[in-house]
Amino acid sequence: MDAHVLTEERPAGGAAASPAALPPTYLESLLAAGLLIETGVRGLYGRSAVFEGIADALNAVITRIGVDQQAEVLRFPPALGQTDFETSEYLNSFPQLAGTIHSFCGDERAHRRLLARLEDKQDWTDQQEPTGLVLTPAACYPIYPVIAKRGPLPQAGKVVDVLSYCYRHEPSLEPTRMQLFRQREYVCLGSPERIVAFRQLWMERGQQLGRDLQLPLEVDIANDPFFGRGGKIVADSQREQKLKFELLIPVNDGAPPTACMSFNYHMDHFGSLWHIALEDGSTAHTGCVGFGIERLVLALLKHHGLDPANWPQGVRDTLGDV
Amino acid sequence: MDAHVLTEERPAGGAAASPAALPPTYLESLLAAGLLIETGVRGLYGRSAVFEGIADALNAVITRIGVDQQAEVLRFPPALGQTDFETSEYLNSFPQLAGTIHSFCGDERAHRRLLARLEDKQDWTDQQEPTGLVLTPAACYPIYPVIAKRGPLPQAGKVVDVLSYCYRHEPSLEPTRMQLFRQREYVCLGSPERIVAFRQLWMERGQQLGRDLQLPLEVDIANDPFFGRGGKIVADSQREQKLKFELLIPVNDGAPPTACMSFNYHMDHFGSLWHIALEDGSTAHTGCVGFGIERLVLALLKHHGLDPANWPQGVRDTLGDV
Repeated sequence: MDAHVLTEERPAGGAAASPAALPPTYLESLLAAGLLIETGVRGLYGRSAVFEGIADALNAVITRIGVDQQAEVLRFPPALGQTDFETSEYLNSFPQLAGTIHSFCGDERAHRRLLARLEDKQDWTDQQEPTGLVLTPAACYPIYPVIAKRGPLPQAGKVVDVLSYCYRHEPSLEPTRMQLFRQREYVCLGSPERIVAFRQLWMERGQQLGRDLQLPLEVDIANDPFFGRGGKIVADSQREQKLKFELLIPVNDGAPPTACMSFNYHMDHFGSLWHIALEDGSTAHTGCVGFGIERLVLALLKHHGLDPANWPQGVRDTLGDV
Repeated sequence: MDAHVLTEERPAGGAAASPAALPPTYLESLLAAGLLIETGVRGLYGRSAVFEGIADALNAVITRIGVDQQAEVLRFPPALGQTDFETSEYLNSFPQLAGTIHSFCGDERAHRRLLARLEDKQDWTDQQEPTGLVLTPAACYPIYPVIAKRGPLPQAGKVVDVLSYCYRHEPSLEPTRMQLFRQREYVCLGSPERIVAFRQLWMERGQQLGRDLQLPLEVDIANDPFFGRGGKIVADSQREQKLKFELLIPVNDGAPPTACMSFNYHMDHFGSLWHIALEDGSTAHTGCVGFGIERLVLALLKHHGLDPANWPQGVRDTLGDV
């Protein structure tokens, strides 16, 4: 296992000691055990059969505990159309995280230029043109325009079940901060009261799931990583209004605990942007509970060990076959 | 359902008739039934629970009929590192299909410029910079560098099981030609004899699966869509050497049948690029069987109807619970 890139720039803390004397970081342990597979890019890893088995088991549990929601299951590929992405106003808040997809659209002459650049080890991407697709930044984004197009929602609202690979441009050495990772979400659209009750229900269910998985956890008010100085104000306001809570579990060595679930109340943000209305004509409010699938797998491996066969029986019972 | 974009430019054949008088295309039927969900972008669709149920059932069957391969299961997110992508020489053959991921890396001033462009409905993507990630063009691409790093393969070779969303920049009105779609593959690495036998085995198993699913099929020699005039020569050579076979099923209205599986012998192409060796020091040959998950689902829906509950019992038995 070539961990050169990783050991060279390991997180601060052991800089004075010889690299050989340091215990492996959690990421290094995961790579050595073959649970994650290095690709040479920070935050981009392959997953082993064992890792995927735990991910599948988690998704099955989340389905089971959500069965009373009678959610509509919708699955989208990991990209949005650019027009929908623009409407979402993601670029106002998180321009630094989004990923646009670009392609070569030139002729044979341009292709020869591309190959010459490649051969000379120069940048060949200058000929790439935007395709009109943007990688999905959060699993719920594709559903708002789809639901909006269907017309007014029933007054009781509705719940949608989504799961998608999401992209965020934040290369990191923390295994919990991947550039491509899966989010499972239940998204609720309805009256403000419906959303508040939905969020409360899932904050309780999320904590119960964490306890059933025998993970140390706390729930706290949180904010999204809004861009720039102006973003600080938006983040403060989000905290003041208690719009976002996170379920936090310690995962990374010597770092603050990691958000493994989040419980969000968007108020009428998406309802207004997409003109999603209830039967009475009022703008729908929305909220969601999001499960970070990779983060939950990493939390389980951290606290119960790298071999699921040796996990506590209660955890294994909760997850079914792992 | 707003099918405006689709009906406006429907495939040739009914141009003289009134649009209202035309029977729906297969894509329109799938959208009307809610099996696929429109996103406003050609070749980018959401999937319903029913569609995903069929996809999951197909994957389970493919796992079952491949169990004797003792394949190593590896799963990758839908992107490669740019260095690995360059090494793959994909840009020589298919530059037009690849998708690179770009992000905004500017400061607050640049962000204000971005938002001003957005507000003026001008192109804002000119500030996007390459991130060093490229979308996966075929599910097997991430595994070659990973296997190469492990050192020589056992003389008997090995089989890897992969499944990934793949991206190809080819917007189309044919539902079988999506920009983001899933490929399931078994990839074999070993001696030339091993690969030839592997491919023969899977050509037989693929046809048997097609017959069990009661789909009309034929197997034919094929070639990849190599770019440009030079690509024609490469494609001809690929056909002459019988390196690629496809299992074809009629799916699209009035169009040639669609490749739903492919059986490929790469000779030493990837083995040489990545320096993958066998125990005796010789360069590994590789081959793969690829299953187009969306295409197989679409073939089933086309031939057996849009409601799996009404499919022939033999098909339902083959797929297990759909």
